[in-house]
Amino acid sequence: MIGYPNHKKRCNSSAQLSQNHIGRGMSLEDDLNSSNAYYLEIDRALIHKKPTPIQVVKVDYPKRSSAKIIEAYYKVPSTTDYNGIYRQRAIDFEAKETRSKTSFPFKSIHEHQIRHLERVLLHGGIGFFILRFTSHNETYLIDAAIMIEMYRQIETKSISYEMVKKHGVFIREGITPRLHYLDCVDELYFKDKTSSKKENQTIKNFSG
Amino acid sequence: MIGYPNHKKRCNSSAQLSQNHIGRGMSLEDDLNSSNAYYLEIDRALIHKKPTPIQVVKVDYPKRSSAKIIEAYYKVPSTTDYNGIYRQRAIDFEAKETRSKTSFPFKSIHEHQIRHLERVLLHGGIGFFILRFTSHNETYLIDAAIMIEMYRQIETKSISYEMVKKHGVFIREGITPRLHYLDCVDELYFKDKTSSKKENQTIKNFSG
Repeated sequence: MIGYPNHKKRCNSSAQLSQNHIGRGMSLEDDLNSSNAYYLEIDRALIHKKPTPIQVVKVDYPKRSSAKIIEAYYKVPSTTDYNGIYRQRAIDFEAKETRSKTSFPFKSIHEHQIRHLERVLLHGGIGFFILRFTSHNETYLIDAAIMIEMYRQIETKSISYEMVKKHGVFIREGITPRLHYLDCVDELYFKDKTSSKKENQTIKNFSG
Repeated sequence: MIGYPNHKKRCNSSAQLSQNHIGRGMSLEDDLNSSNAYYLEIDRALIHKKPTPIQVVKVDYPKRSSAKIIEAYYKVPSTTDYNGIYRQRAIDFEAKETRSKTSFPFKSIHEHQIRHLERVLLHGGIGFFILRFTSHNETYLIDAAIMIEMYRQIETKSISYEMVKKHGVFIREGITPRLHYLDCVDELYFKDKTSSKKENQTIKNFSG
């Protein structure tokens, strides 16, 4: 696994990357999906992107066996995009990109996503945001509680790039996984624990 | 909250139910969605049905603001339908109905859903199935490990109604929630704990 803490190196390595990962885009969603697939494969975590909610209106059945949807609409998601399990904890997060160099605008976060993350914290899950500043080519993981607090402040319409740098954790990039974001989760939420390996065994009727 | 342990009473109460829950169907999915909405409202749990995965092929933009999907197809789900957080634990389950009086056929469970639930257990989550025998008008919660073991047995193509009754927990029905299935989760996975109320507080950087 090769990391690129210096973000400029990331672009230089793209040719090499595309050889290894044919057809993979460079969007945050693609990076997270491939990282999650890798984490799944090595049994480090079980994290999936939820399907986009779609309201199906009309379905055509050209054959008995196959259904073709011919009228449908995108629905506003009522939760975050990603969730799963890591080190016996429920994980839930939203990932967003911005082209702005100076701040991340809150208008791209839905009110019910904030409500959802408040509930994640209430029920004992780990909640965070993954924010990418495409102009800086940098991605950060920031705790949901900090984001919620900022979001809930009246007249605050964004979180500044400096604030994200200060309160968030820089996500190292690599080839596999594309984003080493679980290392940031370890750092933020499991600092007092040494290794996750011992925990990765079948746990039945675990009551912790 | 009124429970109907005798399933025959359930049918008798449907007129009363439909008065309170206008437009609600009686499918297992509807019952679970309304139960989850209730559990969400009273802050008991955070459990959602995942959207059905759909492969969008063609989108039309009649107006700039609205997108109309005009060609799409249902995809085979790679995970289970329901997941969330309850009493600080990651919850993951699949819900299925059968008309058979004698057994629940495994053909309606996808291999990758079994794989997914194996991973849920591996990473320390609580995994189970909710099975409804519509002909008996009874719904059971059964631990994923038992189902997986049965499923993995060569030449076993179903789990008998008697086995489900023996190893599963009968889910009491009511008005709100429609299915008291979290009581069964308490019974199966939290028997040694007394109350969930104390746990329902904001937990930040919890490392349990």
